[in-house]
Amino acid sequence: MPYIEIPSPVPGIRGLMASKPASGRVLSGLAEQLLRGDSPLSVGERELIAAYVSYGNGTRYCTGSHTAAAAHALGGDYALVEAVQKDPATAPVSERTRALLAIAGKVRGDARTVAEEDVEAARAAGADDEAIHDAVLIAAAFCMFNRYVDGLGAITPEDPAVYDRIGAALVAEGYLPQAAE
Amino acid sequence: MPYIEIPSPVPGIRGLMASKPASGRVLSGLAEQLLRGDSPLSVGERELIAAYVSYGNGTRYCTGSHTAAAAHALGGDYALVEAVQKDPATAPVSERTRALLAIAGKVRGDARTVAEEDVEAARAAGADDEAIHDAVLIAAAFCMFNRYVDGLGAITPEDPAVYDRIGAALVAEGYLPQAAE
Repeated sequence: MPYIEIPSPVPGIRGLMASKPASGRVLSGLAEQLLRGDSPLSVGERELIAAYVSYGNGTRYCTGSHTAAAAHALGGDYALVEAVQKDPATAPVSERTRALLAIAGKVRGDARTVAEEDVEAARAAGADDEAIHDAVLIAAAFCMFNRYVDGLGAITPEDPAVYDRIGAALVAEGYLPQAAE
Repeated sequence: MPYIEIPSPVPGIRGLMASKPASGRVLSGLAEQLLRGDSPLSVGERELIAAYVSYGNGTRYCTGSHTAAAAHALGGDYALVEAVQKDPATAPVSERTRALLAIAGKVRGDARTVAEEDVEAARAAGADDEAIHDAVLIAAAFCMFNRYVDGLGAITPEDPAVYDRIGAALVAEGYLPQAAE
């Protein structure tokens, strides 16, 4: 159980957000904007960044949910998401996605290590300023979501089938509360 | 200069947010909610958490701005903010603030290390669930803001007087764009 009381035993970030709806609404809106709003990155690419960062941070709830969301957005390809988590340098993704994942990995660790060369490599692979902006901000945002979930000890299901359902719902309905209920 | 083009040479996160107003608006709204919205934590305590986390992450722009904002919110006491950044265990703050800063420090590093004892210590010092929730979420959010600023190489002024003015404005006007312009 979480370190704070939550109104109902809802797993993951949603249970925590329900404990303070005023901030919960802003967090849902941010997830919707970053992962479903206008962007040169596809939903699959953005969920892949979320799944990669969450895996790197070792946050089981977010890793489970966004691995499933990325897989569903990419035609059901769990193996691809797992290959990215294991090593984006060798995973079967586009060069643009690979370069953006490399930046996302640096943002997750120490964002001060992102260098001009990383950005140039992404640009050479076809990323424009908005794609670079969005990749950095999504990686940064999951460093927040992951810490919120871990720092308050969110409820973390064990059953992979639960995450598969959550991921499918996130792809079908997005992140806004009315859609998520 | 930042790694991406920004519409005008505005320092820090504001310059980056202007490059994509759709996400900038949500980020400003989140900062306003977390640092100025209803909370059992004072504005000074919340800015102190922001200044402490930003310092720990080594993000100069955010450290400068929130050190100044915390100092202004706490009666101009820069020495207090710097004492917290150096070591919250010995800084002259309340036991509740000290316990919440200890949790914030763990959230900043590896949030999975937050333990029941940390939360119990905060509770024993007078923190309720909402105070614990807000401390964790503010610490987590600055792990995002810091990475966004560092990952895109935001413009970082050198002059301490610039940060003093930014901090004073943040205390007087908050984080929403209309107030910040």
